[in-house]
Amino acid sequence: MSNTAKIQAHNVTIMRDEHLLAKAENLKPVLRKSEVLPNRLVEVRSDSESIHGWNVFEIGSAADLSNTKLGKSDSVIVDFGDHRVGYLSFAVSPVGSPPDAPLKLKLTFGEMPVEVAEPFSSYNGWISSSWLQEELMFIDVLPAKIELPRRYSFRYLKIEVLDTSPKYRVVFDSLSCHTVTSADRSSLQSLKHQEPEMEALDRVSIRTLEDCMQDVFEDGPKRDRRLWLGDLRLQALANYETFKSNNLVKRCLYLFAGLPDEHGRVSANLFIEPKLIADDTYLYDYSLLFTVTLCDYWEATGDQETLQDLWPTARRQIELALENVEDGLVQDRDSWWSFIDWHEDLNKQAPSQGVLIYTLKRAVRLANAIGGEEGKNCSDLWNKEIRFTENAAMENLWDENLEFFVSGEARQLSWASQIWMVLAEVLPEEQNRKLLLQLIEEKTLIGMTTPYLYHYLTEALLVAGLREEAITLIRSYWGGMIRDGADTFWELYDPHNKSYSPYGSNLINSYCHAWSCTPTYLIRKYGL
Amino acid sequence: MSNTAKIQAHNVTIMRDEHLLAKAENLKPVLRKSEVLPNRLVEVRSDSESIHGWNVFEIGSAADLSNTKLGKSDSVIVDFGDHRVGYLSFAVSPVGSPPDAPLKLKLTFGEMPVEVAEPFSSYNGWISSSWLQEELMFIDVLPAKIELPRRYSFRYLKIEVLDTSPKYRVVFDSLSCHTVTSADRSSLQSLKHQEPEMEALDRVSIRTLEDCMQDVFEDGPKRDRRLWLGDLRLQALANYETFKSNNLVKRCLYLFAGLPDEHGRVSANLFIEPKLIADDTYLYDYSLLFTVTLCDYWEATGDQETLQDLWPTARRQIELALENVEDGLVQDRDSWWSFIDWHEDLNKQAPSQGVLIYTLKRAVRLANAIGGEEGKNCSDLWNKEIRFTENAAMENLWDENLEFFVSGEARQLSWASQIWMVLAEVLPEEQNRKLLLQLIEEKTLIGMTTPYLYHYLTEALLVAGLREEAITLIRSYWGGMIRDGADTFWELYDPHNKSYSPYGSNLINSYCHAWSCTPTYLIRKYGL
Repeated sequence: MSNTAKIQAHNVTIMRDEHLLAKAENLKPVLRKSEVLPNRLVEVRSDSESIHGWNVFEIGSAADLSNTKLGKSDSVIVDFGDHRVGYLSFAVSPVGSPPDAPLKLKLTFGEMPVEVAEPFSSYNGWISSSWLQEELMFIDVLPAKIELPRRYSFRYLKIEVLDTSPKYRVVFDSLSCHTVTSADRSSLQSLKHQEPEMEALDRVSIRTLEDCMQDVFEDGPKRDRRLWLGDLRLQALANYETFKSNNLVKRCLYLFAGLPDEHGRVSANLFIEPKLIADDTYLYDYSLLFTVTLCDYWEATGDQETLQDLWPTARRQIELALENVEDGLVQDRDSWWSFIDWHEDLNKQAPSQGVLIYTLKRAVRLANAIGGEEGKNCSDLWNKEIRFTENAAMENLWDENLEFFVSGEARQLSWASQIWMVLAEVLPEEQNRKLLLQLIEEKTLIGMTTPYLYHYLTEALLVAGLREEAITLIRSYWGGMIRDGADTFWELYDPHNKSYSPYGSNLINSYCHAWSCTPTYLIRKYGL
Repeated sequence: MSNTAKIQAHNVTIMRDEHLLAKAENLKPVLRKSEVLPNRLVEVRSDSESIHGWNVFEIGSAADLSNTKLGKSDSVIVDFGDHRVGYLSFAVSPVGSPPDAPLKLKLTFGEMPVEVAEPFSSYNGWISSSWLQEELMFIDVLPAKIELPRRYSFRYLKIEVLDTSPKYRVVFDSLSCHTVTSADRSSLQSLKHQEPEMEALDRVSIRTLEDCMQDVFEDGPKRDRRLWLGDLRLQALANYETFKSNNLVKRCLYLFAGLPDEHGRVSANLFIEPKLIADDTYLYDYSLLFTVTLCDYWEATGDQETLQDLWPTARRQIELALENVEDGLVQDRDSWWSFIDWHEDLNKQAPSQGVLIYTLKRAVRLANAIGGEEGKNCSDLWNKEIRFTENAAMENLWDENLEFFVSGEARQLSWASQIWMVLAEVLPEEQNRKLLLQLIEEKTLIGMTTPYLYHYLTEALLVAGLREEAITLIRSYWGGMIRDGADTFWELYDPHNKSYSPYGSNLINSYCHAWSCTPTYLIRKYGL
């Protein structure tokens, strides 16, 4: 996700816990490299039936590239066969007279066909155009072996020869991508499922996760290439079922815990390079997800040392969250902000109340694991808070007539509120089931825009025992992405508006995005 | 100069004389590096009184740069105070929140204000747009220290911040240019002249020469960055009066002699990187200038070993040139091409006849220096050829009524024909003087476009004893460039059409060009 000025904190003092940060540093993974060669040469043609209006057609084999002489204004699109994250290298040689002018090249990298079909100059969205993956290159001496220093996230590479000279053309050869990931496929067990579609969903999830696993869990290798708490939580869940790179989860938790603000609050995201920096962005729900993620980690690993180290941070997030609670209710104020989903009009009170209760229940489990007087005190206190907040939710946010949770002063109805209240298990399972079935029927509520919230909807269905509905949702939503050409799952997908982008253009969306990688977790964890 | 398809040879076999090439390799100079800091910040504003319609105004000191915060769409123009050839480096740091998107930068390098004022996208000329000096850069991690790997030729640097993100801006610092040249200023004697203008002409000539002196004598450090024989000859003349880097002249002569075609003809120019290549371009006058340049070199140095080594090549150029002569006349055919000047309509016969006679006279001097039987035979033969060709010129090319030399079947009248016939000293000095004075009066002849031919006009005036006219010409022509803002002398300058470019745009002209560096030679050699 990207952030807006709205959620930007000012005058925050970042503390550094060198002990925790040293542990994170020691857990830094080794990146695994593989060389991937291109599959074929393609054309991208306008096609109103295809996503974003573009479809891909094969026009030659990869081997044809080294027989293709390109002069001024010629171009070629190379398909690397699947989503890749890595470093590009190629050789380029002149054909004709000795090159009497530099070679001017433009390279455009696309995760999706739209990126190599529509000019980046058409982009006029509100987040930085610098995310669009392109290079303008001048090569003074030919032949040349080029190794580009930047990492790209792509399947398609468009090579445009902007200029040579009238005396020579060029040929490309030895094109390859050196992919990088810290995921280890050798520890991966393949899924055998009677439904090929479920196997495909699992496979695409795993590729998504793998391509986001770098020095840390990145949200997206194209954009923002950053460690976000909301993404981390879902990546960690998928990881326990697949790569089991538990040390990478541990590393990320230590990083967040090592850079709190002066109140002990963890940032929504961290920058890793050139040095570790906590972004000046704080999100109510994301901070709580630190505690949730630690609980998941502890339950997956039983790692007591990490629990001891990170418990103070986990506890502190609860304390800070409770400061925004009055009479058991998360206050609907401008002084805090939750992410919940990419939706301009979404009121965040009720879903945040759901996140708080959901987290409190996991915090109690952590407190019990900590034990002793401190653990018992916390457990007692938080159990009381659970009752307060549940009661306050039922009294203030539950609409008896509508049989939905409402949010904010305007008593807004949204999917997000129902989803998080179900996950928080405020109502008994039977009522949760009824609520969700009614939700699926009802079309007029404020809807969902991101796979992030779709994940929590799916898990809510499973929590409420609606297994078939969960499978149907996975098949229609993530399966829809695959039918629309996904090699990895996307940052954004609205089946009813496939050109949806909160940024003003499909060009800038991320098409390999961590928070979208959970079908493998859902399928494997719940045995779907 | 650049070449056209017209002058491109096909199916030429290049021979390699490893003995000569090894000697050239041993003479490879060490490049001297200096760090140059920017002078000031400027704006370039439209001004119909200024060359190309652009004038430069100071808007701040160089120190102001590190206080200038640049966000999306901001730009700044840095003035490095004089013409520079070298490598750019800078530091760039973020201001504001941690950079949450890459920095997208555009750098534009200009020898002249027009290059940083008019967009390169407006260029639509016939030579490659890849010569336009620009870079598009994406900087993923900030702060960053950037060292650009390419060499640039410039005075002005335009830095455009194409995008950051709404959360941060950037500041540039430690901007510097590491200049490179193989010229050694320590061996330079400064000119003391009672006329400041003559000192300025000398200084700008020397800077032009210095910036073209790299691994070889380049024609222009912006374009074509290549060793051309016509430029070399004039650079060598200027060099003997200034830097006295005689080994660099020697190296270039060995390079040309080491890569003849199968007939022994030297190419018009050589590529040095990635390996030594003779371009498939052959020019009648340039090949002859090899012999002339060797004669100049020998007379400047008395270097007998080089004379012995390169004599066969020098002699061979004469023999090949004489193959195009019938009844004493250079044939006006399409099978050969002379450069002479950048002029579409210029007939090359008479000026080439002049170049031939001029060269024969120097070849005789070389033959006399070689001595022995071979030297005597050549001397006798070429003296005979001088008489034949001079007589043929007078009989066929001299128009008694017009009192001008004519060229080609259409009996074209041009400055070039008169200039080269005067330099060839076909007429007695008194008649040469009369011819040139009449030429200056007469406006209707095919004129001149390049400083290259202006040089030969100036030297023709001096050969004919028209010293004051030569001084007036230097002051009006090269002095005109200085008055129009030249830091180094230009590839092209037409005082009557200051926006002249044979390439279709002022943007692509070279504004530091070897063939324009000769005022220092003319002033110092002739004591002007």
